[in-house]
Amino acid sequence: MRESELIADICKHNAELAACGGAEVLIAPGDDMALVKLGGQRVLVAADQVIAGRHFAAGTPMDQIARKALARNISDIAAMAGVPACAVATVALPAAMPDHEVRALADGLRAAALVFQCPVVGGDIGTHAAADGALVVSVSVLAEPGPTGRVVTRAGACVGDLLCVTGTLGDGWRSDGSGRHLSFTPRIAEALALVEALGDRLHAMIDISDGLARDAGHLATASGLAVRIDGAQLPCAAGAGWQAAVGTGEDYELAFACAGQPPSSVAGTPVTVVGRFQEPGGVRVTVCIGTEEHDVSALGWEHG
Amino acid sequence: MRESELIADICKHNAELAACGGAEVLIAPGDDMALVKLGGQRVLVAADQVIAGRHFAAGTPMDQIARKALARNISDIAAMAGVPACAVATVALPAAMPDHEVRALADGLRAAALVFQCPVVGGDIGTHAAADGALVVSVSVLAEPGPTGRVVTRAGACVGDLLCVTGTLGDGWRSDGSGRHLSFTPRIAEALALVEALGDRLHAMIDISDGLARDAGHLATASGLAVRIDGAQLPCAAGAGWQAAVGTGEDYELAFACAGQPPSSVAGTPVTVVGRFQEPGGVRVTVCIGTEEHDVSALGWEHG
Repeated sequence: MRESELIADICKHNAELAACGGAEVLIAPGDDMALVKLGGQRVLVAADQVIAGRHFAAGTPMDQIARKALARNISDIAAMAGVPACAVATVALPAAMPDHEVRALADGLRAAALVFQCPVVGGDIGTHAAADGALVVSVSVLAEPGPTGRVVTRAGACVGDLLCVTGTLGDGWRSDGSGRHLSFTPRIAEALALVEALGDRLHAMIDISDGLARDAGHLATASGLAVRIDGAQLPCAAGAGWQAAVGTGEDYELAFACAGQPPSSVAGTPVTVVGRFQEPGGVRVTVCIGTEEHDVSALGWEHG
Repeated sequence: MRESELIADICKHNAELAACGGAEVLIAPGDDMALVKLGGQRVLVAADQVIAGRHFAAGTPMDQIARKALARNISDIAAMAGVPACAVATVALPAAMPDHEVRALADGLRAAALVFQCPVVGGDIGTHAAADGALVVSVSVLAEPGPTGRVVTRAGACVGDLLCVTGTLGDGWRSDGSGRHLSFTPRIAEALALVEALGDRLHAMIDISDGLARDAGHLATASGLAVRIDGAQLPCAAGAGWQAAVGTGEDYELAFACAGQPPSSVAGTPVTVVGRFQEPGGVRVTVCIGTEEHDVSALGWEHG
């Protein structure tokens, strides 16, 4: 079963959430983060993990693993235009993992917390029964809405809205496990600047973790639309072709829908218009290359 | 390296947390939950996990695994006298796990959320590279302080305080993996009733996940004291001797320090006085059996 199917299955039950008691759920599962209300305060919350052999290759230094585990979550905060508040983490260690590597992982989490201004305030350390059990680092983050109070979701794009992205695409994950996914800077400042600059013209946003084809598809689906990408406009990273730019996962740039032109850059990061939202029906995500049209709705990175 | 050593190591750096930015940290790592301030609202947050082969045996039904993953966290909320708000979860699945088991796990989390009034509002589903990778379910919870606003920590016990426990002890985890750890009810109602009944006489509290010897030791250490347990007073579960009652992990009862006698029961659960806090120096945790004195400071369950 693919993750997306299971998530769709889980989201079918969102109506039950209110019956649970507990916090009022303002944004339910299915977006980059949930939004809940605690004693009058709106709090964004999400969880994500990295698994050895899936999200990082054997031999990746512990500090890079720790950084990625936190950074992926910070990227989800950016997608909602939130501000990081704090994190908690659990780690499941291979039984044979030497002490100095465990310490390097803990030090790496602490260093990343300083970089991302998101203190790690708690968690749990467990050990696999197996000597070679796969290292799993699971991080949950809390965030607050930014200064304007605006929280941006995946839904809300309108017909004619421009599809825009920050930065460059296509070099997030290379087949040998290297790539920007180990060193990217989550686009918190860019997201807050977009809210500030675009105001109500910013209609929907997501971070590109599954590849632009899939993530633009998420914006389109959540908004009840289709989207058409102009391959010639894609800001391809050095060495990346259009297929990589729309199909590679883990770029961790922002993709957003806006009415009218966006600024050419935000917080020092270039912004590029790469497509347009249109009426649904037919192909959900199309990439146009000259006169060719490619259905890329099924392209992209399904995280393991 | 034992978990407790690493946690002690991590807590050494707590002073750095304020330098991180993000949320104000009111209670730092080292207690059952952290307490942070978000926009004027105090929020409790914690994370815990269950790992196949460590926290549940092979063949344990998925609904029980899911329930335990959430219940352990709810028990941490009880330890702080909090009220559950919401949870997020990540699961790392064995690659060979059949779809119906994945669904059973998701259904189990949803069912547990209803029981514990703690909606699961987000998370991530990942798959191990290995067909037989160990199932890891990591859950993070958010909670609010109870109606009185009081949050109870591990620190604060005074010399002469009584050490008290709820319920019975010693049948949490059996060597075959069975036991109450798969079906216990976290003591949320009991904790709130204790705050109500004892007021300022309730000095410190913890949930018994590592065994009473170790967890009473945590109360003593956090309070700068020693503690003496009267073996004859231990409310042993059927078939459990005193060693099991102080050494078995995963009872998930409450242990607390109070000035003067506690009520004999709270929220329908018996309360038993089992010991007394005393000046530090010498043995940290002692169990007295008749005229014998046993140093149990090193006893108890070190979670894998």
